[in-house]
Amino acid sequence: MDIGDEMRQVADRAREASRKLSRISTEIKNRALTEMSEQLLQQSAYLIQKNKKDVDFAVESGLSPAMIDRLTLKESTIRDMANGIKEVAALPDPVGKVTSMWRRPNGLMVGRMRIPLGVIGIIYESRPNVTADAAALCLKSGNAVILRGGSEAIYSNIAIGRLLQDALRKYEIPEAAIQVVETTDREAVYELLQLEEYIDLIIPRGGEDLIRAVVRQSRIPVIKHYKGVCHVFVDADADLDMAAKIVINGKTQRPGVCNALETLLVHREAAPRFLPEMARQLREQGVVLRGCEKTCDLVPDAEAATEDDWYMEYLDLILAIRVVDSIDEAMDHIARYGSLHTESIVTSDYANAQRFLNEVNSSTVLVNASTRFSDGFQLGLGAEIGISTTKLHAYGPMGLEELTTTKFIIYGNGQVRT
Amino acid sequence: MDIGDEMRQVADRAREASRKLSRISTEIKNRALTEMSEQLLQQSAYLIQKNKKDVDFAVESGLSPAMIDRLTLKESTIRDMANGIKEVAALPDPVGKVTSMWRRPNGLMVGRMRIPLGVIGIIYESRPNVTADAAALCLKSGNAVILRGGSEAIYSNIAIGRLLQDALRKYEIPEAAIQVVETTDREAVYELLQLEEYIDLIIPRGGEDLIRAVVRQSRIPVIKHYKGVCHVFVDADADLDMAAKIVINGKTQRPGVCNALETLLVHREAAPRFLPEMARQLREQGVVLRGCEKTCDLVPDAEAATEDDWYMEYLDLILAIRVVDSIDEAMDHIARYGSLHTESIVTSDYANAQRFLNEVNSSTVLVNASTRFSDGFQLGLGAEIGISTTKLHAYGPMGLEELTTTKFIIYGNGQVRT
Repeated sequence: MDIGDEMRQVADRAREASRKLSRISTEIKNRALTEMSEQLLQQSAYLIQKNKKDVDFAVESGLSPAMIDRLTLKESTIRDMANGIKEVAALPDPVGKVTSMWRRPNGLMVGRMRIPLGVIGIIYESRPNVTADAAALCLKSGNAVILRGGSEAIYSNIAIGRLLQDALRKYEIPEAAIQVVETTDREAVYELLQLEEYIDLIIPRGGEDLIRAVVRQSRIPVIKHYKGVCHVFVDADADLDMAAKIVINGKTQRPGVCNALETLLVHREAAPRFLPEMARQLREQGVVLRGCEKTCDLVPDAEAATEDDWYMEYLDLILAIRVVDSIDEAMDHIARYGSLHTESIVTSDYANAQRFLNEVNSSTVLVNASTRFSDGFQLGLGAEIGISTTKLHAYGPMGLEELTTTKFIIYGNGQVRT
Repeated sequence: MDIGDEMRQVADRAREASRKLSRISTEIKNRALTEMSEQLLQQSAYLIQKNKKDVDFAVESGLSPAMIDRLTLKESTIRDMANGIKEVAALPDPVGKVTSMWRRPNGLMVGRMRIPLGVIGIIYESRPNVTADAAALCLKSGNAVILRGGSEAIYSNIAIGRLLQDALRKYEIPEAAIQVVETTDREAVYELLQLEEYIDLIIPRGGEDLIRAVVRQSRIPVIKHYKGVCHVFVDADADLDMAAKIVINGKTQRPGVCNALETLLVHREAAPRFLPEMARQLREQGVVLRGCEKTCDLVPDAEAATEDDWYMEYLDLILAIRVVDSIDEAMDHIARYGSLHTESIVTSDYANAQRFLNEVNSSTVLVNASTRFSDGFQLGLGAEIGISTTKLHAYGPMGLEELTTTKFIIYGNGQVRT
């Protein structure tokens, strides 16, 4: 069978499953999730054995130690996966919720009810835990999922998928609700991305190159973010100790993630008091500084930033710094160079706090808090399936609700239009 | 200048305007809308004169009388346009609304605030009133709009666009908030659809061919519906008088629109009592019937339906009829042949009403009411920019809220992640 037909069969089974899935009770979904969590723990030796094939092959192929680390399943990572699924079971079920209802003058009662999207395709790289996380979120929200991980984790992903399907079978949920694509043929991704009649949404998770390739090829709506060039703006009258804590946290707590701080903007009135001490603290943490001219005047060991630096998502211990004349200049900089991800202002000025919140239209905008809070779990959405910087459908961290849509439901008693 | 550069300039101006537009007060937007409405009325002679060029050319080119009718601006159509804009001014402004806000254990206050999408492209055919309607809805929701109508209405569209821009200027709103594409070069549409860095959403309005072409070419998210194959299911114990009224209304009140009834499903227990009299009433209204075998037994003058009929959006006085064994068979038929637009059940059975509402996942699902209510104005959303049968972002009739997205706003007092 050719790869196009094979993917069409996968997608067709997913669509069939999704119709049944949308009617399965919350209780059954939660029991299946609990069973999945237990299966992973009980079968950890099996998972580690299958994972070893991927790891051995990765070592042979000369993958970087960081990639091998991400790929490796240990008892502790399996425990984390199992706990993650249990947490999803504990979240409220978004399906069937009537978000609002109103009466029309003709007596029609009109409401909006949350329903699953249908079939979701996840295209991702290396970390096998995405297989379990994404499957759990899709099942809880009543969606069938097609999981296409990287070839480097194929044995691990297939093994996890089988355990999850065992749990589905036990509760008479169609197996095709969770399908791992078993071929590593690169064409499979392209073929999946053409199947707009079967698949409702594609979520790519991985590096910018992967995401751009998916967007270019897909006929199906894609929710994604390319990168997170997150800013902190330290206003003229900011509490400078607070500002320093927020900058250190944003840049150094976990520099390799998308909500890490990349560019620091400082009001010129605060810069002489703030930057020399801030630079000292950042250097202590091993951060390399790249500054505008004014920054370099105040921080002699900062490197000179180029135009390119303002667009950079370093994902590393590097920070771009620019001194600005006003909050307007700060907001212009963010509009021009930003990625619509996450921006924070540190200020004591009430009006400026409100202006920043209202006028900056990135997906997450904070006052006096670290950019690192831009995360589904931190914001109280429960587990997160990803972050969107596309304004359509979902913008910012996405939880279970973002895996649903709403239909109109209307109760009448014989109304017709006149 | 080549057409690609020209469209990029249009889109770049729109993006610039959209940044300012997102900060303009509701009051100013409403005043500008009121001014637009008055401008259209005052300048009706000018509009009719410009429109005459389009109409004359359409007559010369031999366009159908129906198309020429849709194209023609009369005093009454201009009054309708002006009233439409005034109604948009009276609607609540969705921008800035905080849809929910909650406190996290660490004291962060997290909310979701509605913001404009940014720049919206509308690709449409013949009716010049779309120019005014769409521009008003986009302005009210804080979005810049690029309007690309059909070449057959180019003089009318440009004239309407100029009047609307006059009103913008009067209130110091950037003119580029409303731009009519002035070239009739067909390449212009293709070029616009590539500009994903500038345009946030494309809404095509017109026939299925236009919409499919837009979806195929666009790199920008598209909200659309291809067609409306709407169903009424008359259950075993339906009130048959009510059912007949709902069927007549759905099929004959305005057969050429997307929420008109196309396929009637009848429970086999109701069919012998219902179909002969229903057929008589439909024939009286000039409706041609195409039935399944059982229907043809009960209604001898019905034509035999083919498999293709179940997929048909007739947009005409033709009705497909099928007798089904159960509500399950009715819902299976809808899932298989439907277009996710609008379906209605006529029933006296409480459990079946609830099952139909819960299990049919079309964008609008009704009990005991006409499919013709699937319309933004009828549902109380105010004016409507279109109907979506894509589940992402908006599903069903779209009002002003669907032209916005939400960002996360977070009030902190120094929080960092640990």
